[in-house]
Amino acid sequence: MSQQIRAELISVGTELLLGQIANTNAQWISKHLANSGISVYYHTVVGDNLARLAQVFENSKRSDVVIVTGGLGPTEDDLTREAFQQTTGLSIIEHEPTIQSIEEYFKRTNRQMTPNNRKQANIFEGSIVFENSVGIAPGIAIDYNDTTYIFTPGVPSEMKAIMSEFVIPHLVQKYHLNHIIHSKVLRFIGIGESQLEHELQTLISNQTNPTIAPLAKEGEVTLRLSAFADNKEDATQLINTTEKEILSIVGNYLYGYDDETIAQKVVERLKENQLTIASAESLTGGLFSSTIVDIPEASHVLNGAATVYSPTAKEHVLDIPELIISKHGTVSSECAELMAKQVKKLYQSDIGISFTGVAGPTMSEGKDVGTVFISICDQYDNCHTVKHLFNGNRFTIRTRAVKKGLERLYQLIK
Amino acid sequence: MSQQIRAELISVGTELLLGQIANTNAQWISKHLANSGISVYYHTVVGDNLARLAQVFENSKRSDVVIVTGGLGPTEDDLTREAFQQTTGLSIIEHEPTIQSIEEYFKRTNRQMTPNNRKQANIFEGSIVFENSVGIAPGIAIDYNDTTYIFTPGVPSEMKAIMSEFVIPHLVQKYHLNHIIHSKVLRFIGIGESQLEHELQTLISNQTNPTIAPLAKEGEVTLRLSAFADNKEDATQLINTTEKEILSIVGNYLYGYDDETIAQKVVERLKENQLTIASAESLTGGLFSSTIVDIPEASHVLNGAATVYSPTAKEHVLDIPELIISKHGTVSSECAELMAKQVKKLYQSDIGISFTGVAGPTMSEGKDVGTVFISICDQYDNCHTVKHLFNGNRFTIRTRAVKKGLERLYQLIK
Repeated sequence: MSQQIRAELISVGTELLLGQIANTNAQWISKHLANSGISVYYHTVVGDNLARLAQVFENSKRSDVVIVTGGLGPTEDDLTREAFQQTTGLSIIEHEPTIQSIEEYFKRTNRQMTPNNRKQANIFEGSIVFENSVGIAPGIAIDYNDTTYIFTPGVPSEMKAIMSEFVIPHLVQKYHLNHIIHSKVLRFIGIGESQLEHELQTLISNQTNPTIAPLAKEGEVTLRLSAFADNKEDATQLINTTEKEILSIVGNYLYGYDDETIAQKVVERLKENQLTIASAESLTGGLFSSTIVDIPEASHVLNGAATVYSPTAKEHVLDIPELIISKHGTVSSECAELMAKQVKKLYQSDIGISFTGVAGPTMSEGKDVGTVFISICDQYDNCHTVKHLFNGNRFTIRTRAVKKGLERLYQLIK
Repeated sequence: MSQQIRAELISVGTELLLGQIANTNAQWISKHLANSGISVYYHTVVGDNLARLAQVFENSKRSDVVIVTGGLGPTEDDLTREAFQQTTGLSIIEHEPTIQSIEEYFKRTNRQMTPNNRKQANIFEGSIVFENSVGIAPGIAIDYNDTTYIFTPGVPSEMKAIMSEFVIPHLVQKYHLNHIIHSKVLRFIGIGESQLEHELQTLISNQTNPTIAPLAKEGEVTLRLSAFADNKEDATQLINTTEKEILSIVGNYLYGYDDETIAQKVVERLKENQLTIASAESLTGGLFSSTIVDIPEASHVLNGAATVYSPTAKEHVLDIPELIISKHGTVSSECAELMAKQVKKLYQSDIGISFTGVAGPTMSEGKDVGTVFISICDQYDNCHTVKHLFNGNRFTIRTRAVKKGLERLYQLIK
């Protein structure tokens, strides 16, 4: 087992020191380094200030790997490169391929390239350059003395892309990380965190390698199994054994692994069963269909969706009889079932799902905030309508409603 | 105006270095110190390790105020006190009143007090002790050389209680903080960070109070003006003067302030102009309508939306002639404009907006990933269709398309 690699993170940005945002980049990077067997010993946050940045770089010589995020942008207060140059004396050069891709980017997006954009192509002489697939400034790797410095933009989407596509693989290879922490996440839906923990109590407390960490997510629960071993095979072996024990107890709540989402599984199952779907959405306002469209395979299964937010739209677009609305209200089992039936017909799909309810902030039609009717009509025209009550604010109520709809769809077709 | 107080935060806890949690304590403390006129220069996260903790305390002598959270618990890996003692040589004593309140606490809650709970009553000789109204370990304030050290537990609820009830007032009094930092965020859309910076270059570099900090967000840019003054009135005065100068240059890109969102402004303007809207969505799949529905006022302006994901749905639900699709494709200016026109009619709304394009991961109809046509038909049936090209993955392309649609709507009705 090779020796321990000591890493530290430096996050550059005054917005962090002002408390405008939490340092979620540091959390994400720490988790991913740990999974590759790299131990993080320090996080440092420092502002866009040349002297203080340089001092932090000075301290960072204590580490084998230093990941620096932020301060690579085009503006004057982006000083990461300059501060590192001041500490190391390395010279800054323009990276020609990056200049070209920046110019192409601005051509493509019909935007005006200003001189300071060139700055984002500045790298240190001798760097390895990692392409930024979602933004402009690339990632940079440069060795100085016995320390490997990695620089990425602070924008989370760009940092994550560069880290997972290039930096982690680069470090694993460079340091021959032949001892690893391998993790596998089991994803459960339809069971609460406390119940899951209760069922697995003895297992969780007696288990050391892999460790079992339950985590409650929005509308679902995950178990993270983390095994420490000399290689991935051994770790996987350890994890599989424990996984079998877990699934023998709570297996029928499992829907997926790692980064799989319930939406993804629903799309998979629909595709396998050659079923198409359409949604009629009131309080969710298109959040269900949008969640499905996030999945690349969506075009095989989603015909479309009707967001019928106003009562008129319900009547006019989905032919919900005015009588139903005046008699039962739009937030009713009757209206929900008709919405599902009609949208199924309108979009000529096999399955129709509908969401109608009260997202708040105030009651509506005398129904409490959080009241949501979800109806699913299947390919045999059997409709199941359930009244749910969700906690939270406008946003979480809508999110939980969509999650519940996906859960019920999954149960129907799994 | 009294001189600038320089603070830094030290968060102790391996769970932060493993990425199990984000450092939200640091965000909270930073915000509250800034509001009291104390500038935070560094955040440091370090694990429960005696040597490394001691080294971090060594570095922290650079600051006037050091806020240390975590590592005060009863367990063996709570080493904050020991590490600080090692750095300073201060002696640790038991705080009798705290011992008593701990004993009472365990009596009250009918729990067994274990010997290691006594450890939580340990303070440094000469400390000021701040009662913990929601937990066991108290807060501690101790001066060492020219630095004031504050220690609080890492549990957010306990940290927040001790900070707001005792620490902040203590610091304000101790440092005669009759000056404050007041911030205002200006939100711009339709102009890139680099271009904004370019236009404001002289202003930004000559400006010291308030300072001007640009930050690029998804599809928009913000400028944070932070003024340092004796009171809020003076700070506001300083900010307003600078804001006027800024707006005289880039004013027509401004859409809002502080936490306002472009969706919120669009909904406001639509409501003020008594206009209703409906969207026809292909690649966005309901993300636009769902973003509008996030705003509580949405019901006044959104009639609904048609997610027409499949070509058939476009023909069947929005009566897009098959000829248009076979001749120009669904990703075309012609299809986009018809979608906007038809959805406006179908939902009897004043404005119709449509999104059709290629979210990826692969090309479609020979169009590049990121190609998006957005069409807006206004209340006079004037339609404006623009072809955009967005960078990024499936998710960011869809998000940026919606942001751009909101931007164009805002320009239309602002």
